[in-house]
Amino acid sequence: MNPIYESLMNRKSTRVFENKTIEPNLKSHILEAAFQAPTAGAQMLYSIIDVTDSSIKEKLAVTCDNQSFIAKAPMVLIFLADCRRWLDTYKYAGLNPRLPGVGDLFLAIQDAVIAAQNAVVAAESFGIGSCYIGDILENAEIHKDLLNLDPYVVPISMLVFGYPTEQQKDRQKPARFDRKYLVHENQYKRLNEAEHKKMLIERAQNPTFEYNTYIEKFCTRKYMSDFSLEMSRSSELYIENFMTQNKKMR
Amino acid sequence: MNPIYESLMNRKSTRVFENKTIEPNLKSHILEAAFQAPTAGAQMLYSIIDVTDSSIKEKLAVTCDNQSFIAKAPMVLIFLADCRRWLDTYKYAGLNPRLPGVGDLFLAIQDAVIAAQNAVVAAESFGIGSCYIGDILENAEIHKDLLNLDPYVVPISMLVFGYPTEQQKDRQKPARFDRKYLVHENQYKRLNEAEHKKMLIERAQNPTFEYNTYIEKFCTRKYMSDFSLEMSRSSELYIENFMTQNKKMR
Repeated sequence: MNPIYESLMNRKSTRVFENKTIEPNLKSHILEAAFQAPTAGAQMLYSIIDVTDSSIKEKLAVTCDNQSFIAKAPMVLIFLADCRRWLDTYKYAGLNPRLPGVGDLFLAIQDAVIAAQNAVVAAESFGIGSCYIGDILENAEIHKDLLNLDPYVVPISMLVFGYPTEQQKDRQKPARFDRKYLVHENQYKRLNEAEHKKMLIERAQNPTFEYNTYIEKFCTRKYMSDFSLEMSRSSELYIENFMTQNKKMR
Repeated sequence: MNPIYESLMNRKSTRVFENKTIEPNLKSHILEAAFQAPTAGAQMLYSIIDVTDSSIKEKLAVTCDNQSFIAKAPMVLIFLADCRRWLDTYKYAGLNPRLPGVGDLFLAIQDAVIAAQNAVVAAESFGIGSCYIGDILENAEIHKDLLNLDPYVVPISMLVFGYPTEQQKDRQKPARFDRKYLVHENQYKRLNEAEHKKMLIERAQNPTFEYNTYIEKFCTRKYMSDFSLEMSRSSELYIENFMTQNKKMR
């Protein structure tokens, strides 16, 4: 098709890295690609923490669901939805702006994640692998101190980068669901029981696949896990500062 | 550098389209690139509404802050953070899962936006322009009916696609802030007054730029605008279903 499309289609996560640093000029290019991403009103409603201190990486490897490969990544970027910078920009112009609301946060989250994905695509073009760590949303209290976060700044995505080992390059990319379960024409459509089962069975491409057994294990390991409950508890703390209804009640 | 990096650097929004449909095979490729995006645990925590009905496009052009070009876009995709599909997947395995929390929503928003940005990059590689419409977050009550949304499904991003007119191709891409204001090493750093002013002045590259005048106008037009207040009101409605503290209080 074309090299851009091929790269998007083939990219998969990297969780084991060669012991090789990322050249400073490539790091700069990855960041520049992030900055050039689409952004609401050219506001760039995000900041990026470049984690270079290995003791902070080691702490994050623990606080982000005990994933030791985080500490071994040569480049670790945290993408923050930042509703503080423009608030201060307005204040320094002598204005008295309202406090940020959930809509501002949602817009900032989009800006941050769009920029993050541009960084992923740029890195891939240089042969550098990456992995999203959603677990950065956990442990709000610890991360607030560790990363000096502001109440209007939410660490929405963490990305680790590095050169993939041969084993990681050869790893099979996990299959996706078929388009018919993902795309609905004109209106959202809730799938029925038969569609749910077919969706999973078709993805498995395995004649011995058992829906109930697979889903029960997956649910225990993911959705009902400690890390998942912690992510919702912690995320709720982050969003409370943006809830105007709550503010009114206080 | 390389064609992928160049494409990321040069991409800018398209708001005026040639009167030319997008070929079905290119549309399929754009969707496939979205599906192949990184996704938490391969869960694909999103759905996409492909808006083909011109009467719905016309309604969205009004409800998304009166932007008439939405109705003229040959392809309109709404990316939904979808916490309903896996909830039903668990139920159909005979399980009794907890209700989705804010952490689940944040993870789903990331999946949806990452997929959306892959669609943008793929489209660009085919010469197809795009524009994010954050205003899809507004008017929750109207969009719930118009798009048949579920309480656990949030329309986080809308993208319009089409071939850019020559005028749009020639349009200058808005300048970005310098890296030193966006990237902080190891910890978040709140910028001081001098840094805020320098950040804006450097971006303007215009000797007659006046910080206070520019920011006051921008604040009125963006942050204090009706659409911005509506976005936060409406977004707060979406998130209420995910607040476990609220659920406990009911």
